[in-house]
Amino acid sequence: MSAVLQPKDDVAAAMRAMGRAARAASRAMARASTAAKNAALNEIAASIRRERVRLKAENARDLDGGRAKGLDGAMLDRLTLTDKAIDAMAQGLTQIAELPDPVGEITDLKFRPTGIQVGRMRVPLGVIGIIYESRPNVTADAAGLCLKSGNAAILRGGSEAIHSNRAIAACVAAGLAAAGLPADAVQVVETTDRAAVGELITMTEYVDIIVPRGGKGLIERLMRESKIPMIKHLDGICHVYIDEHADLEMAVAVADNAKTQRYGTCNTMETLLVHAAIAPRVLPRLARVYADKGVELRGDAATRALIAAALPATEEDWRTEYLAPILAVRVVANLDEAMEHIERYGSKHTDAIVTSHHGNAMRFLREVDSASVMVNASTRFADGFEFGLGAEIGISNDKLHARGPVGLEGLTSVKWVVLGNGEGRS
Amino acid sequence: MSAVLQPKDDVAAAMRAMGRAARAASRAMARASTAAKNAALNEIAASIRRERVRLKAENARDLDGGRAKGLDGAMLDRLTLTDKAIDAMAQGLTQIAELPDPVGEITDLKFRPTGIQVGRMRVPLGVIGIIYESRPNVTADAAGLCLKSGNAAILRGGSEAIHSNRAIAACVAAGLAAAGLPADAVQVVETTDRAAVGELITMTEYVDIIVPRGGKGLIERLMRESKIPMIKHLDGICHVYIDEHADLEMAVAVADNAKTQRYGTCNTMETLLVHAAIAPRVLPRLARVYADKGVELRGDAATRALIAAALPATEEDWRTEYLAPILAVRVVANLDEAMEHIERYGSKHTDAIVTSHHGNAMRFLREVDSASVMVNASTRFADGFEFGLGAEIGISNDKLHARGPVGLEGLTSVKWVVLGNGEGRS
Repeated sequence: MSAVLQPKDDVAAAMRAMGRAARAASRAMARASTAAKNAALNEIAASIRRERVRLKAENARDLDGGRAKGLDGAMLDRLTLTDKAIDAMAQGLTQIAELPDPVGEITDLKFRPTGIQVGRMRVPLGVIGIIYESRPNVTADAAGLCLKSGNAAILRGGSEAIHSNRAIAACVAAGLAAAGLPADAVQVVETTDRAAVGELITMTEYVDIIVPRGGKGLIERLMRESKIPMIKHLDGICHVYIDEHADLEMAVAVADNAKTQRYGTCNTMETLLVHAAIAPRVLPRLARVYADKGVELRGDAATRALIAAALPATEEDWRTEYLAPILAVRVVANLDEAMEHIERYGSKHTDAIVTSHHGNAMRFLREVDSASVMVNASTRFADGFEFGLGAEIGISNDKLHARGPVGLEGLTSVKWVVLGNGEGRS
Repeated sequence: MSAVLQPKDDVAAAMRAMGRAARAASRAMARASTAAKNAALNEIAASIRRERVRLKAENARDLDGGRAKGLDGAMLDRLTLTDKAIDAMAQGLTQIAELPDPVGEITDLKFRPTGIQVGRMRVPLGVIGIIYESRPNVTADAAGLCLKSGNAAILRGGSEAIHSNRAIAACVAAGLAAAGLPADAVQVVETTDRAAVGELITMTEYVDIIVPRGGKGLIERLMRESKIPMIKHLDGICHVYIDEHADLEMAVAVADNAKTQRYGTCNTMETLLVHAAIAPRVLPRLARVYADKGVELRGDAATRALIAAALPATEEDWRTEYLAPILAVRVVANLDEAMEHIERYGSKHTDAIVTSHHGNAMRFLREVDSASVMVNASTRFADGFEFGLGAEIGISNDKLHARGPVGLEGLTSVKWVVLGNGEGRS
């Protein structure tokens, strides 16, 4: 240890101290009772409601700073803690308290011929690092999910939300203290130095998993630099394929909802694939629906032959997540061509088929290699709440550990438990 | 592309070509029928039995080479394909054929209030890279597990077994061809150049998971260099803790079996922890059992006060995986001290408590953070076959994806499936 620490070393040392404290707290959290965890969640919610005035005052400081830095309207919007946002934070925490505790559940406990019983017990992962951008509500939300799943958390929010995040962290600390849980179970990184993130994503001995919540730039940087596994997705290039055997009304309903119910979400359809045999019936109808809602269409030659207003699609369009009222449209010869398109251009997030043909539905479900695959339903359903998880920490496009919408279970692992009566192996 | 490839570039290009071929084959394997996969497994087994003479001839070439290189007796032993080893390979494959197909299983399919049904489908991971040392039987074993789980495999065995591995690979190829499955579903790396491993563990776009099977040196090197997640464990420093409330006969039986049933396995007990209140009754008895079997004891002061023949244990002993008839023994004040010892010195592999106290058993199960935790059973049970998995590709000490003994399920992932009737999100 050098006597004079450089600033960068200071940050690294501070982060490692947080890591050690989180690791120690994670042991207490792993054995914490369901009652204590729920009490903490409800106390944090109560504290957030009580501290409404202070939260808004601290948030105003961030908003002033954001305006001075010239943040755009959308950024300021995400940064703002309205009364509604504060109520939603508190309500989210009480909802997490009401979810069943995933920790300690034993499943598949079976006798083996040797006499031992073998099963699996669900246990916390340990320490979760959450890295997010301007939304301060993530502080409460992520803290709540980590707490309920018996993990310790290190939260690193955006520098532009630092005053809001500190104020919410004080509410979290009050709730933990009231429930007799360790203060280090949820730690908020106070420095706005970017080196803190670099340290957080590489201290493999203290952090078990990283959950990034933010834009593509953040995710890409973390993917390059992290030495710790992540629950993340980079893109949501979602497809709906209208099969030859689709019900026309259903096809229009699903393709409409998947594109227009919300434009900026990762499970919004970005490319529509249509079987050539049904295209002349379905595309003109859909063109009117989209035109009414101001959705710009970009199609291949076959699409443009049916929809005069469609612009020509380029190779780039098949690879683009618009997050906007723009839709790429392509006519395909058959199911295989549709699945090849999805394989080539998709992002393994969410893809749907509209069909009344059982065999085609089953082939699509089995062969499309995406986190969520759907038959006759809108891609917009790919969501932790819609899937019944009760909460969502993020969505994963990876195949290992957690896939698709990730709830409390994604913050846990399972270990093997063996119950015997003195048995030995022979 | 340069006109003149350097040897290292040659290897990299060859490995990437294998990667591309494996990725393409993995799509066909993912949709392969259970019948085709089982036919291939049974055909490979038949081919191995038919080619017995050739397998032994090729193996003799490896053995000659190994002797010329001065391999030690244990290495040559692992390298040898006896008639028994050949039969075991074939039988292992037919056993894998008899296991249920994990792929395509849909679980937890439930209706949501919106009308959609949401469930999970088990699917292959994609491409598995297996890196192993001198045992040629791993070629057949790993190929069979990857095939049954619907994955493509790239197998990289030790250079000393190259002729044996090629001969087994020919049997695998014959079985795949007979069942109409793609030849590239199982590829064996032909070059003995070490650069091939470097490429295999970094081509993230073509390989989904790496399974290393071999000694600690191999695992450590791969852990440093791999950019692909691994199913692996480095150490097996397993503990048995004899609680104050243990049944004496049971304690002796479990501690005996856990140490002496086999010395060289990763689930063998390396450190025995004994509650101070029971130590005077159990340790002298165990000392006689171990003395009869030639097990050297290394104890702390309290142990040596009870067992005159025990050598003094050093700090290093608590951290050592002996894989030999040596046992470290420590007397502890209580359950907490035992669990702290395991937390500090253990390797998160397998740990057991012997106790008749329900509360202590439950605390141990919940609080000890190891892949397998046991009550009143020998650590030697931590094994895929003993746990009922039917097969084992390896053991993992990691908490993500697969933990403990890993069978076919560890080579798969689950995706979400949604069945609707035209529903959209509101």
